Amino acid sequence: MPRYRLLIEYDGGPFVGWQRQTTGPSVQAAIEDAIFAFTGEEISIRGAGRTDTGVHALGQVAHCDLQKDWRDDTVRDALNAHLRPAPVAILAASRVAADFDARFSAEKRHYLYRIVNRRPPLAIERGRAWQVPVQLDADAMHEAAQCLVGNHDFTTFRAAECQAKSPVKTLDRISVRRELDMVVVETSARSFLHSQVRSFVGTLKLVGEGKWRPRDVANALAACDRRRCGPLAPPDGLYLAKVDYPDGIA
Amino acid sequence: MPRYRLLIEYDGGPFVGWQRQTTGPSVQAAIEDAIFAFTGEEISIRGAGRTDTGVHALGQVAHCDLQKDWRDDTVRDALNAHLRPAPVAILAASRVAADFDARFSAEKRHYLYRIVNRRPPLAIERGRAWQVPVQLDADAMHEAAQCLVGNHDFTTFRAAECQAKSPVKTLDRISVRRELDMVVVETSARSFLHSQVRSFVGTLKLVGEGKWRPRDVANALAACDRRRCGPLAPPDGLYLAKVDYPDGIA
Repeated sequence: MPRYRLLIEYDGGPFVGWQRQTTGPSVQAAIEDAIFAFTGEEISIRGAGRTDTGVHALGQVAHCDLQKDWRDDTVRDALNAHLRPAPVAILAASRVAADFDARFSAEKRHYLYRIVNRRPPLAIERGRAWQVPVQLDADAMHEAAQCLVGNHDFTTFRAAECQAKSPVKTLDRISVRRELDMVVVETSARSFLHSQVRSFVGTLKLVGEGKWRPRDVANALAACDRRRCGPLAPPDGLYLAKVDYPDGIA
Repeated sequence: MPRYRLLIEYDGGPFVGWQRQTTGPSVQAAIEDAIFAFTGEEISIRGAGRTDTGVHALGQVAHCDLQKDWRDDTVRDALNAHLRPAPVAILAASRVAADFDARFSAEKRHYLYRIVNRRPPLAIERGRAWQVPVQLDADAMHEAAQCLVGNHDFTTFRAAECQAKSPVKTLDRISVRRELDMVVVETSARSFLHSQVRSFVGTLKLVGEGKWRPRDVANALAACDRRRCGPLAPPDGLYLAKVDYPDGIA
């Protein structure tokens, strides 16, 4: 059976998250339903990142096995036609090797978090960014964030419901920068714990508004204590931006 | 009575346009209702640009006269509180001279039009850009657009329902550029005719996809004939970006 890799963009707003749930519409179910409408096959797809309720994706990746050897463009266009009107778009579909696994072959995941730092509420960007009214010092946030890079026990920044076997992960990169009234956080790692990025952003916001000093973040990390985490940032500003795979496999 | 200038952002999606209508919710009515909820005054506000159904604003300007001499920030915050949950944000409110008129004092209006040039439908940008699947040549569009700059009879690019006394206007600037899969059109003039920007964009798209040569735009302009206009571009991609006023008056 030919295996296809799907590159997926979605507005997470109307969904309970990536993963199929009994509690409401999921992105996974929307795509599986579109596959059923297209080929009549009832299959389960696997995504690279199990994004939470309301979290968006610019470049989620999933794989699926189909009975027939369809042209890549046919798979992309047919799924998009059947996905309407859900705010989910298949940006690309491509035949991949049978050992490609969207989740387990992933070498790196890149997340983006967008804060609109202004007092008026959001109109155009509503649901697509976190509006923070207090002036944030993005440089201080960036400085404070650097202690998170490397191999650490991230218990402080891990949601209670996290299913990962270990809280020890390696963070490759985290950067915070200002672009006019937008504060952009970008972070990359092989894998993340549940709510790790939103835990980082909620904690760094405390530094940005001057409530915490940068070294308080290092102390919170070292404490390995969930109670030392700042308030979780809302899902609105979070985007799974990109997933990297080894050359050749994809 | 103190006069206030309001700087306004809105998502035009749920509105019949800026102007109060009997046919549905307008941005003007949403703000007038918020003023009534705030001060109890039933007043009419005037906007710099009468944006059409579905057209957005990043920097619409309106003025209103209030009975009391409120602090600028109080006006901004109170109106924003009463505007919820409409996707309309007062970015700033400021006391201005009694002769300031948002519409008649305006020296220049700047519009932005965003095209996402890709085959897959929009998810994140849905309703906020025009999705054009055919590859567009932005350089050819830019070249073709330059014939529109200057003082012309814009009958070709004017909607039938336009109420302006004359079709003769001076266009100060129009530019088309590509940023990855986005094609951005920016244009500025003292004033625009009804649907003029969407008429420009719909016509330039014909050049971008190779159906028209750049000189066909010049010929269509010279014809002064509405039937020579390309299909109107949808409102989704259009933003009233900024309005300029003379120094000192605002």
